[in-house]
Amino acid sequence: MKKENNEKMKIIPLGGLEAIGMNITAFEYEDSIIVVDCGLAFPTDDMLGIDLVIPDITYLQDNRDKVKGFIITHGHEDHIGALPYILKEMNIPIYTTKLTMGIIEHKLTEHNLMRSTRRKVVKHGQSINLGKFRIEFIKTNHSIQDASALAIYSPAGIVVHTGDFKVDYTPIFGDAIDLQRFAELGKKGVLALMSDSTNAIRPGFTASERTVGATFDHIFSEHQDSRLIIATFASNVDRVQQIINSANKYGRKVVVEGRSMVNIIGIASELGYLDIPENTLIEIDKLKNYPPEKTILITTGSQGESMAALSRMAAGIHRKITIQPSDTIIFSSSPIPGNEKSVSKIINELEQLGADVIFQDTHVSGHACAEELKLIYALVKPKYAIPVHGEYRHLKANSEIAKSIGIPKDNIFILQSGDVLQLGQEKAEVVDKVHTGGILVDGLGVGDVGNIVLRDRQHLAEDGILIVVLTLQKGTNQLLSGPDIVSRGFVYVRESESLMEEARQVMTNALDNCLTNKRADWNKIKLVVRDTMNDYIWKKTKRRPMIIPIIMDV
Amino acid sequence: MKKENNEKMKIIPLGGLEAIGMNITAFEYEDSIIVVDCGLAFPTDDMLGIDLVIPDITYLQDNRDKVKGFIITHGHEDHIGALPYILKEMNIPIYTTKLTMGIIEHKLTEHNLMRSTRRKVVKHGQSINLGKFRIEFIKTNHSIQDASALAIYSPAGIVVHTGDFKVDYTPIFGDAIDLQRFAELGKKGVLALMSDSTNAIRPGFTASERTVGATFDHIFSEHQDSRLIIATFASNVDRVQQIINSANKYGRKVVVEGRSMVNIIGIASELGYLDIPENTLIEIDKLKNYPPEKTILITTGSQGESMAALSRMAAGIHRKITIQPSDTIIFSSSPIPGNEKSVSKIINELEQLGADVIFQDTHVSGHACAEELKLIYALVKPKYAIPVHGEYRHLKANSEIAKSIGIPKDNIFILQSGDVLQLGQEKAEVVDKVHTGGILVDGLGVGDVGNIVLRDRQHLAEDGILIVVLTLQKGTNQLLSGPDIVSRGFVYVRESESLMEEARQVMTNALDNCLTNKRADWNKIKLVVRDTMNDYIWKKTKRRPMIIPIIMDV
Repeated sequence: MKKENNEKMKIIPLGGLEAIGMNITAFEYEDSIIVVDCGLAFPTDDMLGIDLVIPDITYLQDNRDKVKGFIITHGHEDHIGALPYILKEMNIPIYTTKLTMGIIEHKLTEHNLMRSTRRKVVKHGQSINLGKFRIEFIKTNHSIQDASALAIYSPAGIVVHTGDFKVDYTPIFGDAIDLQRFAELGKKGVLALMSDSTNAIRPGFTASERTVGATFDHIFSEHQDSRLIIATFASNVDRVQQIINSANKYGRKVVVEGRSMVNIIGIASELGYLDIPENTLIEIDKLKNYPPEKTILITTGSQGESMAALSRMAAGIHRKITIQPSDTIIFSSSPIPGNEKSVSKIINELEQLGADVIFQDTHVSGHACAEELKLIYALVKPKYAIPVHGEYRHLKANSEIAKSIGIPKDNIFILQSGDVLQLGQEKAEVVDKVHTGGILVDGLGVGDVGNIVLRDRQHLAEDGILIVVLTLQKGTNQLLSGPDIVSRGFVYVRESESLMEEARQVMTNALDNCLTNKRADWNKIKLVVRDTMNDYIWKKTKRRPMIIPIIMDV
Repeated sequence: MKKENNEKMKIIPLGGLEAIGMNITAFEYEDSIIVVDCGLAFPTDDMLGIDLVIPDITYLQDNRDKVKGFIITHGHEDHIGALPYILKEMNIPIYTTKLTMGIIEHKLTEHNLMRSTRRKVVKHGQSINLGKFRIEFIKTNHSIQDASALAIYSPAGIVVHTGDFKVDYTPIFGDAIDLQRFAELGKKGVLALMSDSTNAIRPGFTASERTVGATFDHIFSEHQDSRLIIATFASNVDRVQQIINSANKYGRKVVVEGRSMVNIIGIASELGYLDIPENTLIEIDKLKNYPPEKTILITTGSQGESMAALSRMAAGIHRKITIQPSDTIIFSSSPIPGNEKSVSKIINELEQLGADVIFQDTHVSGHACAEELKLIYALVKPKYAIPVHGEYRHLKANSEIAKSIGIPKDNIFILQSGDVLQLGQEKAEVVDKVHTGGILVDGLGVGDVGNIVLRDRQHLAEDGILIVVLTLQKGTNQLLSGPDIVSRGFVYVRESESLMEEARQVMTNALDNCLTNKRADWNKIKLVVRDTMNDYIWKKTKRRPMIIPIIMDV
């Protein structure tokens, strides 16, 4: 760092600051933009029928010539899931670590994007140059291997982005987080630290992944007469490794079940991130050749996802696995907020089938708690703190931690997506706001479902629909046919015949009055239909189904 | 108890054993039936648009002459909420404690049932005789005052029903749970114990309600410069009492906000269950006369309910209260499973308005944990254990506790709603199954929404609706008008004109083919419309909106 440095860079989060999900942040210096992560978000409860949400990248498209590449911190969906959609809009090279790239390439293959996408694998400790930026990848720990923090060098200074991380001194695979490098960077002088806020509201430290292994060993030794079925996150390869270690120690064969689990385990073992002893894995069809107590299943569905393997087993509709009273099922996970009820439902179903269910002490988080965040602040000693990755309350908690460690309040920025934070050695401020948002994906449609469609779906979900159809003589408005009333999702018509018949009568009377006025245009008629039905139905039922008047003319 | 007793009674749960909610249990001996509790359930996520669920009481209606009365254990909705609906079907007297009756009478008044319903207030320690039964009310502790356990005496033996309870040695109002009476009954000999399973999966003891008061005092002393807004359960009168105590100690005026909170506080103070010092409560409109730091609000909305007072404050749409950056908001509650995301949403909104939010250490449960359940088993020493009040996994955990305390496995019954458990001194067994179920209430409609309507609502919610209308010449099937396509909740039509136009074209072609066959009847035509549209739309969008063909004839 020169003593006099008036250079300025911009940080522009394009997502990820209103909720956990859809992480994507642009870093801009003069004619260069690099983009960190490109994640999707899962739909919120009010986004009925939506499959997933991807970020609006208008800002990147408006600055297409500047954009040098995607830098991906790790292979979770909220950091890579939007790549296939965005790459179809903009062809940008991808830089990331080996396992992360393996997972991305699986997606690119599915979307037929492998040939058109430039990709470069980077090792921890290495740097790449992109335009005016240099980006160094730093080893961290997380609930997926090969996660990276980034040191982003520009003439304006160094920004450190932790990615999603925890401090694990005893990780399962590879090294612990490179704390020395964080310290070195801190000594050099860091302009800003962007750190993971997910667990900032939790005091203390997150336990090491290794602690879960000890619990598995204990459970394996206590349940030597049961088949074990262990549900966990597909992407947590270290967890799978520990389950396989315990299985091996106790002489059990391992079946892997669930599409995403099979995918990730395939990628991870091919790339050398998973060490599976020979003759340990067996095909699900071979299970019958072994005594149940000499087998385990590792399966998807730990969040109660209704289509996942474990849900199908619990509901008794899995094609190959039937839950037995002698089975022990382990949830090696904790429910993501919003999934509590689905998880409970599956536990109930499994216990009703007579199985034992264990759902405690077999999971640790992948995110840093308050004391770990303090450690990183203390090593990096940034001038500015920018909490990232979380809902507002998580960002707020992280900013309180930054304050407690001595960063002045004015140097802490809780940004919103779209904020353009301009920062240099002397000053940091939000100077602009760019367009951002979520684009809804429903089936093949990207962006064709918006607020109006969602509002209609909510209305339909609440009280159903009443369709009123009539045919009029062209010109004279004489009623040739109808009004007919068709309903769905409103009442069970066969048991509400008198209600529906009276509604038709009320409608007929209202139309008689309206149609004698020959000048009544269709808009007028539709208004009468809608108002009459609304009033009648509300009076009778205190419900407000959607009313659709349809007029045909002949 | 006589030495030779071959008498038998029946216990028939009509709800409450598949989920938390809708508690209602019939006890039958010869020509006498008494019914313990009459609760509602809140709709599950798949019950779109439903307001609440009440139990199907076909069994009681089929045995109307036997039914002697409702015995109500306490005033929570899952124990009293269905009373107004059931009383309209069957006029049965109600027996319960004073506060519980006060809350019930508020409901009866709203439903215009006061005059027609016989009611008798019973004190703890008192018994009533109903047919062949005698029922003794026993003091317990819970998150609402005046909760009772019941000793139900019949010639076949004594059944103890705990109701919802915890063991609180230092309650806020009135006495601790009458453990001596449980012991006395145990000495006499108890046939069966039905105990609250809600917290059976939690180890240890539930903390005393009084511990929350100490936390309030601490928070009040630490936040002497803030207005305090405290959200809690309306029915937790002891909690409200402790908040008022702290307010009084720190010289603050108290505003009560939210309809249900105002109701319950009114009933409780009128009946002497709440001690509010003079000049403590003020009207919300008088708030402006006091400095904010000399006031507190007690409000509904601690579960993130979207229409409750706190949600409206957080969203900035409350008519009288505007959240200030100097406010401190306390959640004196923990989220009921399923409400986690709504609570998070409100915390985010409140913090974004600059307020501080406290959501830890200001709540204790009202239900007994594992060690308290063991205590009751140890005092009552029942021959049979019948876990009640919970999902299957809770009932299972309670049955494990019963087993651990020495009750033989064969004497523990995890029942399902509708099971008829016949029990005597020698034997207990499920001898029959009666019809039970949930009846859905939607607006004024009770039972007119069933599975078909719900399935339609789910379908509509997922992908919306496409309506295809055509007018045919009567007799000749000549197409006079249409096909017209109207959609809602499917795509934003203005931006999908070509899709909709092509759909119309595909439809027209398919109809041309179909209508040239003059013998095609309407069912055939409708089938063609549905299949053609389904295929086309799925191919184009991978969505399956509901397709409604409507044919008019002229």
